[in-house]
Amino acid sequence: MHKDATREMTEHVLDVIKDHDLRGEAMYGDQRTAIGVIGEKEKLDEGKVMRLPGVKEILLVSKPYKKVSREYKPENTVVKIGNVEFGAGPPVIIAGPCGVESEEQIMTIAKGVKERGAHILRGGAFKPRTSPYSFQGMGEEGLKLLAKAREETGLPIVTELISDDHLDMFDQYVDMIQIGARNMQNFDLLKKAAKLKKPILLKRGMSATVEEFLLAAEYILNEGNKDVVLCERGIRTFEKSTRNILDLNSLALIRETSHLPIIADPSHAAGRYDLVAPLGYAALATGADGLIVEVHHKPDEAMSDGKQSLTLDNFEEMMDKLKKMRLLNGDD
Amino acid sequence: MHKDATREMTEHVLDVIKDHDLRGEAMYGDQRTAIGVIGEKEKLDEGKVMRLPGVKEILLVSKPYKKVSREYKPENTVVKIGNVEFGAGPPVIIAGPCGVESEEQIMTIAKGVKERGAHILRGGAFKPRTSPYSFQGMGEEGLKLLAKAREETGLPIVTELISDDHLDMFDQYVDMIQIGARNMQNFDLLKKAAKLKKPILLKRGMSATVEEFLLAAEYILNEGNKDVVLCERGIRTFEKSTRNILDLNSLALIRETSHLPIIADPSHAAGRYDLVAPLGYAALATGADGLIVEVHHKPDEAMSDGKQSLTLDNFEEMMDKLKKMRLLNGDD
Amino acid sequence: MHKDATREMTEHVLDVIKDHDLRGEAMYGDQRTAIGVIGEKEKLDEGKVMRLPGVKEILLVSKPYKKVSREYKPENTVVKIGNVEFGAGPPVIIAGPCGVESEEQIMTIAKGVKERGAHILRGGAFKPRTSPYSFQGMGEEGLKLLAKAREETGLPIVTELISDDHLDMFDQYVDMIQIGARNMQNFDLLKKAAKLKKPILLKRGMSATVEEFLLAAEYILNEGNKDVVLCERGIRTFEKSTRNILDLNSLALIRETSHLPIIADPSHAAGRYDLVAPLGYAALATGADGLIVEVHHKPDEAMSDGKQSLTLDNFEEMMDKLKKMRLLNGDD
Amino acid sequence: MHKDATREMTEHVLDVIKDHDLRGEAMYGDQRTAIGVIGEKEKLDEGKVMRLPGVKEILLVSKPYKKVSREYKPENTVVKIGNVEFGAGPPVIIAGPCGVESEEQIMTIAKGVKERGAHILRGGAFKPRTSPYSFQGMGEEGLKLLAKAREETGLPIVTELISDDHLDMFDQYVDMIQIGARNMQNFDLLKKAAKLKKPILLKRGMSATVEEFLLAAEYILNEGNKDVVLCERGIRTFEKSTRNILDLNSLALIRETSHLPIIADPSHAAGRYDLVAPLGYAALATGADGLIVEVHHKPDEAMSDGKQSLTLDNFEEMMDKLKKMRLLNGDD
Repeated sequence: MHKDATREMTEHVLDVIKDHDLRGEAMYGDQRTAIGVIGEKEKLDEGKVMRLPGVKEILLVSKPYKKVSREYKPENTVVKIGNVEFGAGPPVIIAGPCGVESEEQIMTIAKGVKERGAHILRGGAFKPRTSPYSFQGMGEEGLKLLAKAREETGLPIVTELISDDHLDMFDQYVDMIQIGARNMQNFDLLKKAAKLKKPILLKRGMSATVEEFLLAAEYILNEGNKDVVLCERGIRTFEKSTRNILDLNSLALIRETSHLPIIADPSHAAGRYDLVAPLGYAALATGADGLIVEVHHKPDEAMSDGKQSLTLDNFEEMMDKLKKMRLLNGDD
Repeated sequence: MHKDATREMTEHVLDVIKDHDLRGEAMYGDQRTAIGVIGEKEKLDEGKVMRLPGVKEILLVSKPYKKVSREYKPENTVVKIGNVEFGAGPPVIIAGPCGVESEEQIMTIAKGVKERGAHILRGGAFKPRTSPYSFQGMGEEGLKLLAKAREETGLPIVTELISDDHLDMFDQYVDMIQIGARNMQNFDLLKKAAKLKKPILLKRGMSATVEEFLLAAEYILNEGNKDVVLCERGIRTFEKSTRNILDLNSLALIRETSHLPIIADPSHAAGRYDLVAPLGYAALATGADGLIVEVHHKPDEAMSDGKQSLTLDNFEEMMDKLKKMRLLNGDD
Repeated sequence: MHKDATREMTEHVLDVIKDHDLRGEAMYGDQRTAIGVIGEKEKLDEGKVMRLPGVKEILLVSKPYKKVSREYKPENTVVKIGNVEFGAGPPVIIAGPCGVESEEQIMTIAKGVKERGAHILRGGAFKPRTSPYSFQGMGEEGLKLLAKAREETGLPIVTELISDDHLDMFDQYVDMIQIGARNMQNFDLLKKAAKLKKPILLKRGMSATVEEFLLAAEYILNEGNKDVVLCERGIRTFEKSTRNILDLNSLALIRETSHLPIIADPSHAAGRYDLVAPLGYAALATGADGLIVEVHHKPDEAMSDGKQSLTLDNFEEMMDKLKKMRLLNGDD
Repeated sequence: MHKDATREMTEHVLDVIKDHDLRGEAMYGDQRTAIGVIGEKEKLDEGKVMRLPGVKEILLVSKPYKKVSREYKPENTVVKIGNVEFGAGPPVIIAGPCGVESEEQIMTIAKGVKERGAHILRGGAFKPRTSPYSFQGMGEEGLKLLAKAREETGLPIVTELISDDHLDMFDQYVDMIQIGARNMQNFDLLKKAAKLKKPILLKRGMSATVEEFLLAAEYILNEGNKDVVLCERGIRTFEKSTRNILDLNSLALIRETSHLPIIADPSHAAGRYDLVAPLGYAALATGADGLIVEVHHKPDEAMSDGKQSLTLDNFEEMMDKLKKMRLLNGDD
């Protein structure tokens, strides 16, 4: 309440709170009066309270998400895809090219990353590009090539969904559905994807807060799909010397706040291949449940994101060093 | 090029550039060598160049957007809806509630804002809410009430599209389609909305750069729909004392860079009703082609955004002061 | 408190609060318990409370600043320099070059801006430059030239203080002391400058929050110097298409929260001369108590900031348009 | 150049460039003309060029820093304090309380962190506090207690300098001088501190870019002091769920760009003790040359920063886990 709010004003606010089926208690101090409110936030719009005479400021104490929180479910959620498990201990390594470009390309990379220890194959068939003039992906043909690579290597496949027009195709071909950063708050797509009942890899929006990120996951859980893996991929800040800043503070915090597994994408955070491995080490050292990295056998011929792709050799070095730090077996 | 790049490395880079049908020229300095490249950026992926021996850094000079730029079309685009014109001089005032809540509500507000000088009625029927537990709008019933308010007042209506499931309804009822900040990079929705051939109000994403914003508009123009009105609605920064920061720097810059009209949304930028009018004055003083403001006859009973809605009286005061500053007639 | 905190834990927290001479009250809800605390925050460190068993989160309600707030002093502070008054109604226009470069330069500009309606002359003699290799100002010679320009034109002078080595000189020559954005939290300099008992123009740090900004002013008031004029000069965000983003949200908010006058610096916010005037209109339309703008008679020969300096003609156009919007007389 | 710039305009720009002793070359394309310039940037102000007819945009290619860069000095700089070495391989661990509070406190903590493997003792004697009403440190008495703790344990001491009034004291008592985030661009203090010829721990400003950070270090090197250790301590972003975001992207990049050692401060980045260790693991995994962490034997009684201080037990666990990851010996 304002410093000069009268006792009548305070009592009026308490009445309004009571009328909305909530419990309010006033604390009268020397300088000013505070009112605490207990009950479900949804019952009373902030705007209504803000307008009451004498009200100065409203602070929200409780978090708006429920099903994603550890308070709701204390033990870790384990998301299974075949015999790959996110959140069960050892980190899961997802690797592959930015986009599927040809059969030869995806087969070479799939075998290459499999041999070097990857658990899941990534690769874009439909690409959401900032510019309408950039390469937009191979489409359904790309999905078929991914499925073929799965047959060949046994690696499950994850790829990004950008339109509800493709739901049937994704149902048919894909093991794990990625929702990209740009669509994190495309709630319509979240709900439709959730209904396929396949595991979802949900990337954090470029400037989504932790709360917005968890609420986007809440949309999926709220549709009855519990298989959500979160992905921190770097946030947008004032600093432009690298593409995004990998936000390990939020990753560490989410591991405390939520029971969902969370992995990191050092490739999109770094934006340049020489920084991918150091950020990958950092993410697993912080406790991430896995990594998703871009790997290309010939990055200098890639049709997109060549700048940030590891070669197969780079990928092998990264995996070796992770082993040396004991970050791959999950017993830390 | 790196300081210690050899002449062979430089010549190899020049060869690669030539192979991709581009023209490159080397400038040899005492300290280092720079290579300038002229031609279409799409022909050569950055990643390929970045990997060549001796290459240190790549800087992009030209902008990736075309059809939205003043270089492509120097004169202002005028977007017409009935006899309302964006970009022709006098600013266009769009007003109305955050969400349509009832017939009585939308009729009262529609008449109220019309009497006080508004040109277009706003009101959400489908609401994209951060939390799945918040009020999601009245749906088609809301669109029908908006249409009824249009009949009654003659004001054209603008409302937000959040799913391609609603394209037919929007085609039937709506005069101008709003694409909200969260969907600015939902390229699938942009392209589908563009095809309805109705004017589109494109809101800037919460942390979209000017370039990303203009490229989102480029997606619409690229589908053959030229009737795009841009909307600056505040950006996300470190500063949390108000909801977003109205970015008038970018608004002023876009007026130079693009031929498309651009308006401002002081309500979402401010997040609190007492700052809406001062930011509205600021936007028109900077040269905005209009404003979109939230107005509610009883904001303390609004189901959403009551905290930032003007009352009809507040709206009247704002309009009066705008007249006094000679910001409504467009002759400055 | 945590959802599963016991009643004993809650009571222990209440005991600790009482031991520190504060008053605490518990509100027991179905889901969780909240504790409200009333009294002076300084008495109990957050860290102590955070560690007590069962404590989940601490939210601060009251603001840490006192003397700068309207609650402490409801009426506007008017800062006087000769017969120029900040905060009394009509906005104050400060104009002049980025840096003093020569007698001819500062005299020409001083006369030029005086004729066109400026009230105070600005000009840097000591320049805080990001790089040690950039022009660092003329030093004391620059102060003498400013003083000479004051004699000639009658305009009071404001210039930036960057070292306590210069306190005596500033005491001798300067009418108003500017503390630049980079030194906003150089508390040692703030306290020493305050003791000169001259009016201080305090610029907001590039990424200072409103609270930090007001607390920096509080340092000055706390030394017994009440003559502080705040200056919003643009904040650092993810958006790089212009140098900074002029934060008019915070300017409007500070006008409500604090009794101190606040002006805007559109030159540093814009970073390019063609956007200075539009942002200047915006700031005064929002209610700023003045503007500080860089003006140079030959900006293409300026030793610094030529890119963002207005010519004398540009300045005249800006002043004319401000008059047309009735933003110069202060009767709005 | 603008798309419609004439050949005369281009030639005029080339003449101006030549007049300033720089070399310019024009590249004529179909759409537009670009001009490359080679030579020292300082010779020609951007503003001058920006104003020439036909000029559209200026892009800077070369970096403004010199002595801090790897191009200037390819091999790592090793900063020695007694037998502690930054940048030589094994990371250096700095630990201690936020502020010195009493002899008993600093002695207990100094012995505690020494036993658990710390190499240097930290502790503030002069505290730069956002609010003038917060605890400002013990002053000279604090420096004496730090010196006493050094005698007792053999640990060198590092503490923050906030005023040039204290230079003599720091010369007498301190082994390494910390320049805090708020003073990173207090160039006057940087230059004066540099002259003491003691090693300097330079913290990155809360929103300083990598370039500004390196240029602040350049100020110190430019005074002839080569013993600079950089410190990444978290940057300010839109995300407020933790205090700052530890920017390991920039840390990894600076390790490539500069020869100076760089350490991380996970305590200030996290702002809460439970996230300090995970961020510490991350920083060393990325390749940081050391850590600086806040440790207090009784954090619930600390006079400042208790919320983010590790206990001695927490510190021991962190050191054990770092050993397990083989991150302490520096052979990775």
